[in-house]
Amino acid sequence: MSIQTIHWSNGHVKLIDQTRLPHKLEYIHCRDVKRLWQAIRRLSVRGAPALGVAAAFGVLLGIKSFSGNDRKRFSKHVDQISDYIATSRPTAVNLFNALTRMKQVICRHPAASVARLKNLLKKEALAIYEEDRRVCRRMGDHGAAIIKNGASLLTVCNAGALATVDYGTALGVMYSAKEQGKKFQVYACETRPLLQGARLTVWELLRSGIDTTLICDNMAATLMKQGKIDAVFTGADRIAANGDTANKIGTYMLAVLARHHRIPFYVVAPESTFDLSIAGGKQIPIEERSREEVLGFGGHPTAPRQVKVYNPAFDVTDNALITAIVTEKGIIRPPFGRNIKRIFKRINHPGPEESERFPD
Amino acid sequence: MSIQTIHWSNGHVKLIDQTRLPHKLEYIHCRDVKRLWQAIRRLSVRGAPALGVAAAFGVLLGIKSFSGNDRKRFSKHVDQISDYIATSRPTAVNLFNALTRMKQVICRHPAASVARLKNLLKKEALAIYEEDRRVCRRMGDHGAAIIKNGASLLTVCNAGALATVDYGTALGVMYSAKEQGKKFQVYACETRPLLQGARLTVWELLRSGIDTTLICDNMAATLMKQGKIDAVFTGADRIAANGDTANKIGTYMLAVLARHHRIPFYVVAPESTFDLSIAGGKQIPIEERSREEVLGFGGHPTAPRQVKVYNPAFDVTDNALITAIVTEKGIIRPPFGRNIKRIFKRINHPGPEESERFPD
Repeated sequence: MSIQTIHWSNGHVKLIDQTRLPHKLEYIHCRDVKRLWQAIRRLSVRGAPALGVAAAFGVLLGIKSFSGNDRKRFSKHVDQISDYIATSRPTAVNLFNALTRMKQVICRHPAASVARLKNLLKKEALAIYEEDRRVCRRMGDHGAAIIKNGASLLTVCNAGALATVDYGTALGVMYSAKEQGKKFQVYACETRPLLQGARLTVWELLRSGIDTTLICDNMAATLMKQGKIDAVFTGADRIAANGDTANKIGTYMLAVLARHHRIPFYVVAPESTFDLSIAGGKQIPIEERSREEVLGFGGHPTAPRQVKVYNPAFDVTDNALITAIVTEKGIIRPPFGRNIKRIFKRINHPGPEESERFPD
Repeated sequence: MSIQTIHWSNGHVKLIDQTRLPHKLEYIHCRDVKRLWQAIRRLSVRGAPALGVAAAFGVLLGIKSFSGNDRKRFSKHVDQISDYIATSRPTAVNLFNALTRMKQVICRHPAASVARLKNLLKKEALAIYEEDRRVCRRMGDHGAAIIKNGASLLTVCNAGALATVDYGTALGVMYSAKEQGKKFQVYACETRPLLQGARLTVWELLRSGIDTTLICDNMAATLMKQGKIDAVFTGADRIAANGDTANKIGTYMLAVLARHHRIPFYVVAPESTFDLSIAGGKQIPIEERSREEVLGFGGHPTAPRQVKVYNPAFDVTDNALITAIVTEKGIIRPPFGRNIKRIFKRINHPGPEESERFPD
């Protein structure tokens, strides 16, 4: 792919300004945590896995200025930075999971000096970064098996290299299938209001030489009716313990339409997108964004300003509408409640179950 | 409403340039048929019933320049004008039905002079215009009974005053309900790619003082899931003998979503939108429009130019997904094949059936 969405570069965070794509490939250099917070808030960097990495890097930016050797004060400082980063966006759980991992570094090393903790935090952030690279490729390998030669796929928003460090979740599966020599085509929903499909997914699919067709979101149903879609692949921002999945607004719509047309619907997401602390999708906080996003198009006003606007950035797809969830640890099929528990338990707590074949 | 979408004014057609709304309320004066053809083609005037009126007026513009008393040559001239107008847009049947009515004037008066035929054609065109005004109000009265006090309604594209002479089909029902003192709110789908919902429906609903909320098309499903939609009301561009309904792209999507959420789905359309010559929706020609519409908005590009684009302007909703069709002659409920035949037969061929109550 050769897309470096976000990385740690000489003591600061370098990331692609996705608000400028597809017209310009420009980078933002975040040298302090406030700049990174703004980049997250305005979606210069977005996508659940990339937000996890951004949050971890954000902690590194935040501790740069900390001076002194007071471990207790340092720990409090990290908590404050984390709390601040956590206010940037509420839905993608990867962001919170990464912050938790960073804070746990401090708990796990009760005797370490501040200098050593700074070092350990940097290692942890880079580990989160490297894991994303590995994990996306593993998801790709697992998921590619699902894509049949000659298939026509549908995707929404951007679950690609630009949503991760450099490869992607739903689009990563497509990249893997392509590397395996499979032929297929992709329909990309433009994904109003911010057009991540039209601007980002189309941009990176074309770079990869994948046969891509752009549609408006309201055209997916008619394609399905015409028998032109064989499978839907989406990413996820948070998956509850029962498999209910929050993702970009419009995903739930596609899941209902896929069910009506008997088309399989796949979610592709790493373990860091699962939130096993919540039972179901109703508990997932849904970000509502500015009315300006809906009142215009690419900065150009289109609707009467005095109208009310409803602009949820995400929706929740019930587990019953999901055919399978592709993770780095394998493909999870229903019943999700039981199988999500088993796949992650098996890996995280190796024991007698280790040799047991995971039912997929 | 006090919106004069299209009318005949001092020998020419005066119409609102809907491409300029909501920012500017400007009129186009069409003094020849080519100018009108262009206005139709670029959607300065749109909406199935308004297109019927525009087509009839187009014939009037086309015969203005005809000189001489050769009846045969005049008849051929009217055929040529009609054929030309018929190439403007393929899906809305009202346009073709109006042209047929105009041509029938000539057949019905085999002895009339050219001067008299010109007069009769003008009368017919004005009759089509006046009928639209009456018919919309009758649909409104029939349909208003469906709207419950306190209801929350969803609509797509623009099926309002701007889609007709001055009142509307789906929105006409809402205007009637409001005149009856009912309270309700409307969610308007923005309707990509040309945003007729955001630009036109919002504009005219706000003018009427109706509580209106704008959403992107991909947000309708989540509203339905939240229990925030009590009924969907749409217009139609062509209805087949079995009730299959072509309407703006995204309508079929809403019908599937409504079915999934057990929400009633109503189509509002006059008899002139029915095409009883075709058995089902598969035979309705679907206009595909320019890729530019999807690649950007209002002339502002958003997606990479080299991507393929699919841009159908309409889709077809299966009769099985429609709760009822509101017409000027009453509300048609399933089985549509039988009941559509009965309602129009009863009125057009008064006979023994006349006194029979139409099952609604």
